[in-house]
Amino acid sequence: MLPQWIIEKKRDGAELDSNEIRDFIDGYTKGDIPDYQMSALAMAIYFNGMTPRETADLTLAMMESGKVIDPDSIRGVKVDKHSTGGIGDKISIPLAPLVAACGGTVPMISGRGLGITGGTLDKLESIAGYRVGLSEPEFFQTLKAVGCSMIGQTAEIAPADKKLYALRDVTATVPSIPLIVSSIMSKKMAEGIDSLVLDVKCGSGAFMKNIENARALAKGLVDTGVAMGKKVTALITDMNQPLGTTVGNALEVQESLDILSGKGPADSQGLTITLAEHMLAVAGIPDPGIFQALENGTALQKFEQMVTCHGGDLAAGLPTAGKQIPLPAPQSGFISKCDAEAIGRASLLLGAGRAKTTDTIDHAVGISNLRKIGERIEKGEPLCIVHSNGHEDQTALFQTLEPAFRIADQAVEPPPLILEIIES
Amino acid sequence: MLPQWIIEKKRDGAELDSNEIRDFIDGYTKGDIPDYQMSALAMAIYFNGMTPRETADLTLAMMESGKVIDPDSIRGVKVDKHSTGGIGDKISIPLAPLVAACGGTVPMISGRGLGITGGTLDKLESIAGYRVGLSEPEFFQTLKAVGCSMIGQTAEIAPADKKLYALRDVTATVPSIPLIVSSIMSKKMAEGIDSLVLDVKCGSGAFMKNIENARALAKGLVDTGVAMGKKVTALITDMNQPLGTTVGNALEVQESLDILSGKGPADSQGLTITLAEHMLAVAGIPDPGIFQALENGTALQKFEQMVTCHGGDLAAGLPTAGKQIPLPAPQSGFISKCDAEAIGRASLLLGAGRAKTTDTIDHAVGISNLRKIGERIEKGEPLCIVHSNGHEDQTALFQTLEPAFRIADQAVEPPPLILEIIES
Repeated sequence: MLPQWIIEKKRDGAELDSNEIRDFIDGYTKGDIPDYQMSALAMAIYFNGMTPRETADLTLAMMESGKVIDPDSIRGVKVDKHSTGGIGDKISIPLAPLVAACGGTVPMISGRGLGITGGTLDKLESIAGYRVGLSEPEFFQTLKAVGCSMIGQTAEIAPADKKLYALRDVTATVPSIPLIVSSIMSKKMAEGIDSLVLDVKCGSGAFMKNIENARALAKGLVDTGVAMGKKVTALITDMNQPLGTTVGNALEVQESLDILSGKGPADSQGLTITLAEHMLAVAGIPDPGIFQALENGTALQKFEQMVTCHGGDLAAGLPTAGKQIPLPAPQSGFISKCDAEAIGRASLLLGAGRAKTTDTIDHAVGISNLRKIGERIEKGEPLCIVHSNGHEDQTALFQTLEPAFRIADQAVEPPPLILEIIES
Repeated sequence: MLPQWIIEKKRDGAELDSNEIRDFIDGYTKGDIPDYQMSALAMAIYFNGMTPRETADLTLAMMESGKVIDPDSIRGVKVDKHSTGGIGDKISIPLAPLVAACGGTVPMISGRGLGITGGTLDKLESIAGYRVGLSEPEFFQTLKAVGCSMIGQTAEIAPADKKLYALRDVTATVPSIPLIVSSIMSKKMAEGIDSLVLDVKCGSGAFMKNIENARALAKGLVDTGVAMGKKVTALITDMNQPLGTTVGNALEVQESLDILSGKGPADSQGLTITLAEHMLAVAGIPDPGIFQALENGTALQKFEQMVTCHGGDLAAGLPTAGKQIPLPAPQSGFISKCDAEAIGRASLLLGAGRAKTTDTIDHAVGISNLRKIGERIEKGEPLCIVHSNGHEDQTALFQTLEPAFRIADQAVEPPPLILEIIES
């Protein structure tokens, strides 16, 4: 069957069969099917969608384009979490060691930041010496010794996704539910996990701006996981304001350490605990003792052990920026807006993120002490503190940052963090 | 503006502005914009269409990607005809000299056959020595001396279309009205013509199978021509049965010679005259004397002169096939079906056409003496005569050919040939 016939079938709204999807992705991975046919198919999928069965087949084909970790090579109940990405979302860092402390095994393959969204790997690299590129034996050994390991995507994992992801970026085919689902799930399913919890972000600082789109994505992710024989739960969580009180790499690692000690900000602390509960539930681990692990220091210990296995040195301290500049509240009242997207852009201006993949980042810079929606603030008190190393145009920075906040005279109800839970 | 932003804009259903279209086509022609972005845009155009203004801008951009013949370099009133292609459609061959004999100038750039549809260039090459690749001075000289010349598309005319046409073929983006319109019109408008008549074929042997699609294409062609300041008329004509009584290269040249002598089959003779009338009308040439030109031999003379200018030798005779095999009618009655698509496939099996562009063709083979819908036939009389050089699988040939015909007991009304006329 010629590739253009498969494109035509999808273009005309028909359901592709498993062989057609596998042959197309196989051919694309090997280079027999060129980018121009893949992009035409991606655009046809954008317009006509895919059934749950097609999406699962696409995920499987992309997963099988590369190495799939044999579940038997990792001991224990393997469970992971994936977030669709938001501003200040450092939850993976405290979550993996917390779940490990409760008896789970978390073989987490994470990503780097791009645009306004940060990446777990960049945050971890704030720690002196931390290597995200472990060899496979080192990865297995860390999982065996600690129960969690957080590494970067290797060239062997889902190469079809790597190719397709770059292509979608330049062909306006990113915002397609089946393509997003297969991209996420092909990589996660290659980790050899038994179960998965998804954190689908929704709001100004997230890819999904409204609940309808977030729900469609969450449902697509859960359906695909189930079709592939896994236990999957998806949470839809608010991303209109940043998560926690810090944005920026080293600042977020510090907040993660606070969360591991049970002393994090209410929202990021709470979401870490909720996600841990769901991970242990889908993993079928009874009586997990999450609060105990936070209180008695075993969660923090797991993190320290993992960092050591990755060559990192927490004792060296985290990098700090040259200047701390408070942003004073222009009036007294109640915080009614703290726009995640604007805070993300400000953080990018400071040098904490990448506008393009080849940019370098400054681990020390960012924004801390972020005040949350609903909180009372007095005039002149800081809305946040900017950590700068002088990379940015200060005028542009404050023009971005100031309108991110709004202060109301009347009391404001804090928005709910967890919007919906979709279980398989 | 990044190419992906233009793709995204069209994907989201917005109207592209003139600069965006020109920049994209310019970039694609130069190779700055890769095939994978062009194919994504083509698929987005397939789904969301283009306004008449966008289609005209796309046509203009594709035309200006290459050489545009200066109208002042050709004397007289320049007028051309383009057919969207059908089975047995040899009308260009007698039409151009006929119009030249009536005072028009016809600078016709024609195409080759692909699939079941024949091409004017292939038919002309049945004539010993006929060169379709004249140099530009030879082309202008032939037009000056004779009033018509029929050449092949050069690499300089609309190179963007050449690239895009090949890409559409392998990305399932062929059947899109704005893409078809801009492909046809960018080449025709580069000929330096003042006016144009379009013959949009409709039926089993045409690209447009139903009147709605044919009407949409005809309207798109006329609108675009008008937007570019030309006088344009489109005829929608039947292509459920072949045009005329022959299919195959040399056989169609012979029928063309019959038409030029006023002795062609009723339908192909009539359509030639009708199209000539419309060409001379849009060209604004009064009292053309079409019938006179056919009767007094000046139309045929023009053809003979053109062939001579192209290096061809009609006196050498047309090639003939080794075997003539009649297909006998299985019963007496009235022809109620003569399926153009099946006759086209049979002709392809005989070797008269190309399944792929690199195939060679046999100019002698084909089908002649085709009986037309509505005609009375007696059992055993030939429905047609097959001209074979033994290339074909005879079983497959007759399995294709026999069901092409149907014979009814009751009298059958011949179908109308001209279905609609759309004038600017």
